[in-house]
Amino acid sequence: MRLESEVSGRSVVFACSLDRPDDKLLTLAFAASTAKELGATRVGLVAPYLGYMRQDKRFRPGEAVTSRTFATLVSGLADWLVCVDPHLHRYKSLSEIYSIPSAVVHAAPAMAAWIAGAVKAPVIVGPDSESEQWVAEVARLAKAPFTVLEKIRRSDHEVEISIPLASRWREHTPVLVDDIISTAGTMITTVKRLQEAGLRPPVCVGVHAVFADNAYAELKACGAADVVSCNTIVHPSNAIDVMPAITAQVKAFLCEAV
Amino acid sequence: MRLESEVSGRSVVFACSLDRPDDKLLTLAFAASTAKELGATRVGLVAPYLGYMRQDKRFRPGEAVTSRTFATLVSGLADWLVCVDPHLHRYKSLSEIYSIPSAVVHAAPAMAAWIAGAVKAPVIVGPDSESEQWVAEVARLAKAPFTVLEKIRRSDHEVEISIPLASRWREHTPVLVDDIISTAGTMITTVKRLQEAGLRPPVCVGVHAVFADNAYAELKACGAADVVSCNTIVHPSNAIDVMPAITAQVKAFLCEAV
Repeated sequence: MRLESEVSGRSVVFACSLDRPDDKLLTLAFAASTAKELGATRVGLVAPYLGYMRQDKRFRPGEAVTSRTFATLVSGLADWLVCVDPHLHRYKSLSEIYSIPSAVVHAAPAMAAWIAGAVKAPVIVGPDSESEQWVAEVARLAKAPFTVLEKIRRSDHEVEISIPLASRWREHTPVLVDDIISTAGTMITTVKRLQEAGLRPPVCVGVHAVFADNAYAELKACGAADVVSCNTIVHPSNAIDVMPAITAQVKAFLCEAV
Repeated sequence: MRLESEVSGRSVVFACSLDRPDDKLLTLAFAASTAKELGATRVGLVAPYLGYMRQDKRFRPGEAVTSRTFATLVSGLADWLVCVDPHLHRYKSLSEIYSIPSAVVHAAPAMAAWIAGAVKAPVIVGPDSESEQWVAEVARLAKAPFTVLEKIRRSDHEVEISIPLASRWREHTPVLVDDIISTAGTMITTVKRLQEAGLRPPVCVGVHAVFADNAYAELKACGAADVVSCNTIVHPSNAIDVMPAITAQVKAFLCEAV
């Protein structure tokens, strides 16, 4: 690991999305410590996707709460952090586990703008009650109606989904919105359920295109009209640009230092 | 990452050789923090091979001194450390960069015992003047003579090797000894030089079988009589057992806690 730019006396920002974080963390630690050793005044980290956030609880005995340990490590290597919509479920804010100042960029405005421009007569569909606030915000910004599905999880692999008042949306294009698309299991089940309910093929929109294994191909093949994501993780599905929103937050940190 | 054993009130020891460390560090950090959270009294780390030690200097401008950053991270996750012959060149001891107590296991006795048992009329050969003290110790314990080669490095890939008084060793089997066999470049050049000087095909002995890419196959094919290593990194060349020596140091740490 070698820094090829002069960093002495400068505020240095590393951009490193922390999907597949195991492959990246040491390199990032080396880069950050080298910058500090070579005289950087501050080291910031822009991690559009922040890994391990979903492991926010010891779900089974002996399991690591990886979100917390990862946060401690990352907090040790940078002075500030910018990320896009981290998965906040049991944690209310990043500051519960990250000890460095952080700013969260919300993808909702960029997603809403994309939906308003690309989808005719959209109805925003949230996968479950947890997503309601977020889906309501996207819908408001896109000037579209929304609905939230009822998800009953039978097991790790079995999810039952109910669509309230499905008949109301027969003339709309459903836009399924979620923060992370990983196995895409819930989304695939939902796409099928929407079609069984006689609705149009839905557009699937995710903030973070994690896509485990064949999830992307499976989601595209299951009847979705389109699958798009924000550019927080480089992926063929990237269609929604959140860089202007990230830049604004980075500028705020850089100006603060002056 | 899940601990399946009860750790509460126990002294926990993780055994994790830190070759290919990028793939392992986060898992180790998760395991160690989980053990602490679940009530382990102490967490020890047995890392027979300790990665990144060779990067003990900023060789080129902007380069990371990875040994130091890695040491800081590892020191943050365990209470003590046992390793086998870490590469100490510019550092005199691990305590210069590791802030936790550490014990170094020396492979020389096990290597000497193996050589004495497996090689007839050995002459221990050290690759360069840096190795003299170490090679002398192996030779003393194996009750064998030794010689140290003169290495003139022309560039990263070009090394010239001179064998002092080669004719003296025509009736011996040269045993090339080094701490880390990685690219095996120097060892391969040395094997060829020994044969050019009319000596017998040498036995190559390394402590740590790092073996980058095809290095193992190339070393075996270049005229060496045998290639063996200590079992600090699991590898087909493992022939020398350093586990009893490791166990003794681990017991010392465990007893200290009682």
